Parts: sequence; structure tokens; C-alpha cells
Amino acid sequence: MIQFYGYFRSSSAYRCRIAFNLKGVSYEFRSVHLRKDGGQQKSPAYRSLNPQALVPTLKTGAFHLTQSLAIIEWLDETQPGPKLLPHEADLRAKVRAFAQVIACDVHPLQNLRVLDYLKADFGADRAALDAWCRRWITDGLSACETLLSEYGSSPFCFGEHPTLADICLVPQIFSAQRFGVDLGAMPRLRAIHQACEALPAFSEAHPKRQPDWES
Amino acid sequence: MIQFYGYFRSSSAYRCRIAFNLKGVSYEFRSVHLRKDGGQQKSPAYRSLNPQALVPTLKTGAFHLTQSLAIIEWLDETQPGPKLLPHEADLRAKVRAFAQVIACDVHPLQNLRVLDYLKADFGADRAALDAWCRRWITDGLSACETLLSEYGSSPFCFGEHPTLADICLVPQIFSAQRFGVDLGAMPRLRAIHQACEALPAFSEAHPKRQPDWES
Repeated sequence: MIQFYGYFRSSSAYRCRIAFNLKGVSYEFRSVHLRKDGGQQKSPAYRSLNPQALVPTLKTGAFHLTQSLAIIEWLDETQPGPKLLPHEADLRAKVRAFAQVIACDVHPLQNLRVLDYLKADFGADRAALDAWCRRWITDGLSACETLLSEYGSSPFCFGEHPTLADICLVPQIFSAQRFGVDLGAMPRLRAIHQACEALPAFSEAHPKRQPDWES
Repeated sequence: MIQFYGYFRSSSAYRCRIAFNLKGVSYEFRSVHLRKDGGQQKSPAYRSLNPQALVPTLKTGAFHLTQSLAIIEWLDETQPGPKLLPHEADLRAKVRAFAQVIACDVHPLQNLRVLDYLKADFGADRAALDAWCRRWITDGLSACETLLSEYGSSPFCFGEHPTLADICLVPQIFSAQRFGVDLGAMPRLRAIHQACEALPAFSEAHPKRQPDWES
């Protein structure tokens, strides 16, 4: 059985939950509360699995793995179920690039540790932090909208089935909504988001449906 | 012929140059100067290839691709030459996770657009920006040192041959040195860096050896 260490609100844990659900792979959930006990992710026991002290982490037997995109590609390559990356190399590369816009250039900038630094060292208040997050989310999602413009109007980012791209998009839109990002200029992303949310694999992975959810 | 749009100092362009060299794949270099003409990456012509207005971009025929990790995996999957990712799924996942520590959780935080925002909106001076960069580089590289602790003392991160992990590590160490990061507690990373620099594929990809280099 796979053990999965996550936190309900973490975008990268949310991505992995969607991937588990799409693949039909079950897992034992291990809660790592980022704001309790001074941050449970900083405990020596958790750090021995994830030296970055970030969620998520996957563990099965002696094998443990960090970084959500690596986890999702590992699930795709080793577990049964529908493929989360296209077979054709050019399209697979486009899917990865789309996912990396979000996973490299948007999400890490709004990570808890980064916001804590901005508060402590630059005196950023709530409004300044929200503006910071909105800036990077808007930049990234606008680029994502453009990246899809050559792919017509399929239900999902890159065709008839959800891929790693949709898996990254949906948690980022959840976060965009939290920070009040205006998605008005992104009709394609909004339509894809709606198509994804209609699938139980996505809707059941929502932070609100997790055992560790707190409002 | 592949066209490659980059900038000498960009970590992500540097990664791609190493990958091209390791694969033995040649390319036409197209300079995108991030500080000239108000940022050449912001021109409409370049944005039509890369809507994020970031380097690098790869183009061949009608196909164009952004995001360095996607570019490197595409090169590995479609071009001849030695493999940059291991064949075995568990090890391949570990290599990707290591690369993503750098490409997701370190490098985007020290990107030019982020430092510009910190200057403009938070009044950060040079010392504050350097401290910001050192914090994220130190955190990330310390985690990388620990991630390798279960892999003995092979010349490269994950064995006898360089992989995507080494490709991400070397440009990040270049950047660490620029910002005065203390690598004293990272003997494994320093040894790997030295082994990589002894290979022409790495040394010839150094920013100083590029046609657009400026001191």
C-alpha cells in the first residue's frame, strides 16, 4: 500500500490526489499539518522522508519520493489505469511545459515559507501578500491560456482526456480564487476547470473533501 | 536544425546548453537579451513563441517548446545520444525529484522578474535581494545534499553518468557562487560539481563561454 503525506490546502498535494484518483490507485493518507506544532513538516521524522520539509511525499516500502510532478509521473509509469501523459513525444513535451509553468513559475512563489519570509523580512501585510500572489498567478495562468490557443476547444487542456496539465491547472485555479484573481480573460481555462470538476477524480480531490480540511 | 533562444546567465538556458552538449545535438543560438531594449523577452515576436516572456525556448519547424525541464526531456526522448534519465522507473523518479527541487523551489525565486518586484514593491536593496536569494539557494541545495546521501559516492548525482539532476545542479551552483552562498556543508555537491566541470559538455555550456556573455 502506498502512503501519501499531504495537507488539504497544498496545491502540490492536491495535484497528487487527482492523479491517484484518475489512476484508480488507493493510498493511506498521512496528515502533515503545516500550521500545527510549529509546522509538522519540520519534524525530524518527516524530514527524514522529505529533506525540504515540504509536502507531499509518497512512500511505499523502502522507496520514498518527493516533488509532486515526479510523484505523478512515477504513478503514471508504474501503476495501472489511464495514462496521464500523451504517448506522442511532442505533445507529451507540451503537456509537461504547461504543467511546469504552474509548478515552477507560479506555485512556489505563493508557498507558505515564501509568504512567511515576505512578512518577516519585508514587512508585507495581508494586502501586499495577496497582491504578490495575484501577480504571479495572473502572469502564469495568462500564459497557460495562450499556450492552449493552438489546441482548439477539446474538453481538457490537451484533448479528450485529462493529463498532467489539467492535474496542475485545477489546484492552481482553486488557489487563484482564494486570492481573488480575475479569470475573466481566461475563458478556455474556465471551461476546462468546469469539465474537470464534473469528474469525481477531480471533485473528490478538492481540499474541502479531505479528512484534514479546516475552513 | 533546432533553434534555441536563450541568455547566457539564465540558469534554465544553461541547463539546456548542457543537455544539448551531452546529447551531441547542435543548435542555432538566438540571443534574447533580458536587459536590453527594455527586455527583449517581452517583444511580441518572442512572446508568440513563449507567452511567459521567459527564456529558454526551443523551436524546430512549426514546433516550439518552453520550460527547460520539458525541453530537456524532449531532447532525451527524440534525439540520439546518451540517455539523460535512467531507464528504471524508481531511479528516474528520484532524478526528476532532485531536478525539481532546483527548478521549482529554488531558481524561480531568484528570477529577474521576482527580484524586480521585490525592489519596486518592497523596497528591497541589493543586500536584501542577495539575502533572499541565498536563503532559497541554501535551503534547496542543503536538501539536495541530503537527497543524495543514500546514493554513495558515485562521480555524478545518480551514478556513473550525468543525468538531468547534474544538469540542474551545475547552473544552480554557478548561481550560488554569484550570491555568495556557503557550500561548506555540501561536500557531495561540490565533488559532483567538480566532476561535471571536468567534462567539456558542462564546461563549454558555462555562461562565460557563450557568444552573448557580458561581465
